[in-house]
Amino acid sequence: MNSSDICISNASVLTMCSEPEYLDSAYIHIKDGEIIYIGNKPPNYIAKKTIDATNCLVIPGFVNSHTHVSMSLFRGLADDLPLMTWLNDYIFPVERNMDSEFVYVGALVGIAEMLLSGTTTFCDMYLFEDSVARAAKEMNVRCLIGEVLYDFPSPNYGPIEKGFEYTEMLIEKYRDDSLINIAVMPHATFTCSDTLLCKAKELANKHDVLLFIHVSETKTEVELIKARYGKTPVGFLYDLGVLDSKTIAAHCVHLTDDDIEKIFATNTKVVFNPESNMKLASGIPKIWEIKRKGITCGIGTDGPASNNNLDMIEEMDTLAKIAKLGSGDPSCLTAKDVLHMATIMGAKTLGLDKYIGSIEVGKRADMVILNMKSPHLIPCYDPYSTIVYSAKGSDVRDVIVDGKLVVENGCLTFMDWNEIKLKAQGFVEKVRLWTKKASSM
Amino acid sequence: MNSSDICISNASVLTMCSEPEYLDSAYIHIKDGEIIYIGNKPPNYIAKKTIDATNCLVIPGFVNSHTHVSMSLFRGLADDLPLMTWLNDYIFPVERNMDSEFVYVGALVGIAEMLLSGTTTFCDMYLFEDSVARAAKEMNVRCLIGEVLYDFPSPNYGPIEKGFEYTEMLIEKYRDDSLINIAVMPHATFTCSDTLLCKAKELANKHDVLLFIHVSETKTEVELIKARYGKTPVGFLYDLGVLDSKTIAAHCVHLTDDDIEKIFATNTKVVFNPESNMKLASGIPKIWEIKRKGITCGIGTDGPASNNNLDMIEEMDTLAKIAKLGSGDPSCLTAKDVLHMATIMGAKTLGLDKYIGSIEVGKRADMVILNMKSPHLIPCYDPYSTIVYSAKGSDVRDVIVDGKLVVENGCLTFMDWNEIKLKAQGFVEKVRLWTKKASSM
Repeated sequence: MNSSDICISNASVLTMCSEPEYLDSAYIHIKDGEIIYIGNKPPNYIAKKTIDATNCLVIPGFVNSHTHVSMSLFRGLADDLPLMTWLNDYIFPVERNMDSEFVYVGALVGIAEMLLSGTTTFCDMYLFEDSVARAAKEMNVRCLIGEVLYDFPSPNYGPIEKGFEYTEMLIEKYRDDSLINIAVMPHATFTCSDTLLCKAKELANKHDVLLFIHVSETKTEVELIKARYGKTPVGFLYDLGVLDSKTIAAHCVHLTDDDIEKIFATNTKVVFNPESNMKLASGIPKIWEIKRKGITCGIGTDGPASNNNLDMIEEMDTLAKIAKLGSGDPSCLTAKDVLHMATIMGAKTLGLDKYIGSIEVGKRADMVILNMKSPHLIPCYDPYSTIVYSAKGSDVRDVIVDGKLVVENGCLTFMDWNEIKLKAQGFVEKVRLWTKKASSM
Repeated sequence: MNSSDICISNASVLTMCSEPEYLDSAYIHIKDGEIIYIGNKPPNYIAKKTIDATNCLVIPGFVNSHTHVSMSLFRGLADDLPLMTWLNDYIFPVERNMDSEFVYVGALVGIAEMLLSGTTTFCDMYLFEDSVARAAKEMNVRCLIGEVLYDFPSPNYGPIEKGFEYTEMLIEKYRDDSLINIAVMPHATFTCSDTLLCKAKELANKHDVLLFIHVSETKTEVELIKARYGKTPVGFLYDLGVLDSKTIAAHCVHLTDDDIEKIFATNTKVVFNPESNMKLASGIPKIWEIKRKGITCGIGTDGPASNNNLDMIEEMDTLAKIAKLGSGDPSCLTAKDVLHMATIMGAKTLGLDKYIGSIEVGKRADMVILNMKSPHLIPCYDPYSTIVYSAKGSDVRDVIVDGKLVVENGCLTFMDWNEIKLKAQGFVEKVRLWTKKASSM
């Protein structure tokens, strides 16, 4: 008899691929990080570890397609404020003082939250991204990350030329890494010159990596770019040649019909961030039209300072509901559509669908075991509906990333949360000092 | 030394009253269901039971100001469908077959969910409400309930005259009950004639109880009433004399400025149900204007078939965000405003603020102990923000209703959840049969 590393038994499985879509009382075997068997018959493997999934639902791990994970350290620091007060009085003073250790610890906090709520892959844009990679490696989570690039000096790399060098360093360093993927990440059209944007795309092409950028998040941004270039942000990026199948555009709240056509024609990928868009009063993206058009789109939580959590189940719920509200049609986007966007479509958005996003033989083993016994999940007439509209991040019992059990019975296995919390405490005191937020009340 | 029943020690407390608003390292003593002490000094009481609240936050229990709790049994039965398909193919066939036992078991499931996520009082409109009262008594939860009244025959009472009799029976039966409060509950202006509405208000006045009604939930409803009476639903109810300080209007999604004036002038109470309004594509109520005007308003989840959960923390998060989105102003409603609406203002909405809604000496002891140690709650710069934007229902550790510990360490104390689940299973099979929803996929 052959051996496997992990066997999940008695599993109800939503595979998120078409054949089969659903399995009951199934076995999943994992070896060397890969799914080697899924089916109803107990196969000829002896597993080193067996996880009983009775009364549970097994699904692919969530792909959080846009976040700034280290901002977890200023979660709740300054809510319910106008954007400019938030930026000038809180975020900028902190970011001016920030260093790589701050970003590392912030990433640990955010990754802990993500793993515990079922996210197995995240896409991150921020400063000192090598520290995010370090945290991701230590916690064993998959990611696509990139150093934020813009025209003004960065607290990490200084002038923009150094930013390109830093990005290239990341690309080289993690080229063959099993978990860490690097993208080129210019911030947005209003913070990056056309020269910067073109150089960024050249760099991405040179190394055959993705480019990630914020696009048309707010009306103000669209108006500013129109005034500056006589084009929408999408039109501007299109004319620069930045849009193609290896570019990811986050937010896309304010798109014209022509913008949607250009995104479709270039096979550009889109990420929706509904909770952040609501909290910052940015608007409702035309999710239903973009989806119907056949554009590949994922879901992201955005950073924990503008959400304020990293829970993909909550984000799915909000996305489905905001699409109904925005379109006026309760049937415009189904729970199944949304779970696709949070798993296999998210993986496709990040260029990782060859490896992850569904539960099939040959793919890397990134999956989540949801405990389905709680009152808020009873009854379950349709598992897609139950996950999207009723479940919570806390229903996640076990999480496997790249074949490793990273969450077991609701606890992290790779790092002690109390240790992370202790590390975070020191930086929280600094943030209070930097922003003169003296007390917790 | 005097004795108390429960002492909560080492508590950080948001009292939701003004003096003091916040207490750290405090003691709360409860005796005979009443809060008898709150303060920083250990008082002269010996408690029968002490609950250590280190690393926890103590707040008043949530007031879910509008739901149909027994609809938990068709949670997720038919989502992402146009309203008429949902009603005709699913909800009506089930409700035609429903009996008091179905409503009782549905209420047990919903109450279990509510208690575990920190709701200590709920306001319920449905059929066979005496069964909801029975479930509430058994589970020890506080409620304001009423039998739904409309012009067509009811599966419970038959013709409307019997509906008034049934309501009067409930009023008499629970007049002196410590937990159960009864209101008169006509369904809505489009399902109730003017005669019915006037009789309902007369009945409420006769017994000095509240009247609860759905108002202006959808555009269709507003147009229908305008076509029928030449007035908005609020205008119509105002002219009938139904609006006053003892009337609660749920939803209020489509109000004109004049409607808002009339609600303010009559001191009518309002309940918002943002998640249901999103899921059914009903619209965004002018929460920020209604609040600014000084109208008393609470928050409700609506029924679990149109949400699909009964989690007040999630509902607060959505309410705050949808207000920002709707107004275009991120500062239009703060986390503190929203927590007020979910506690003391909710209690005022239901006419119970003399007894509950805040943690002060002399009030009944309805409170929640939130575990604040999880990664998604770290750091906590502002406890209001943390609860509203970051927390989940699953952060609720202990719940006290009327001085009784009904949830301890995340488990129900008054009833075994597995027993409830078993009871529910039989009805779930029936629902499948009635709606020909054969499988779980």
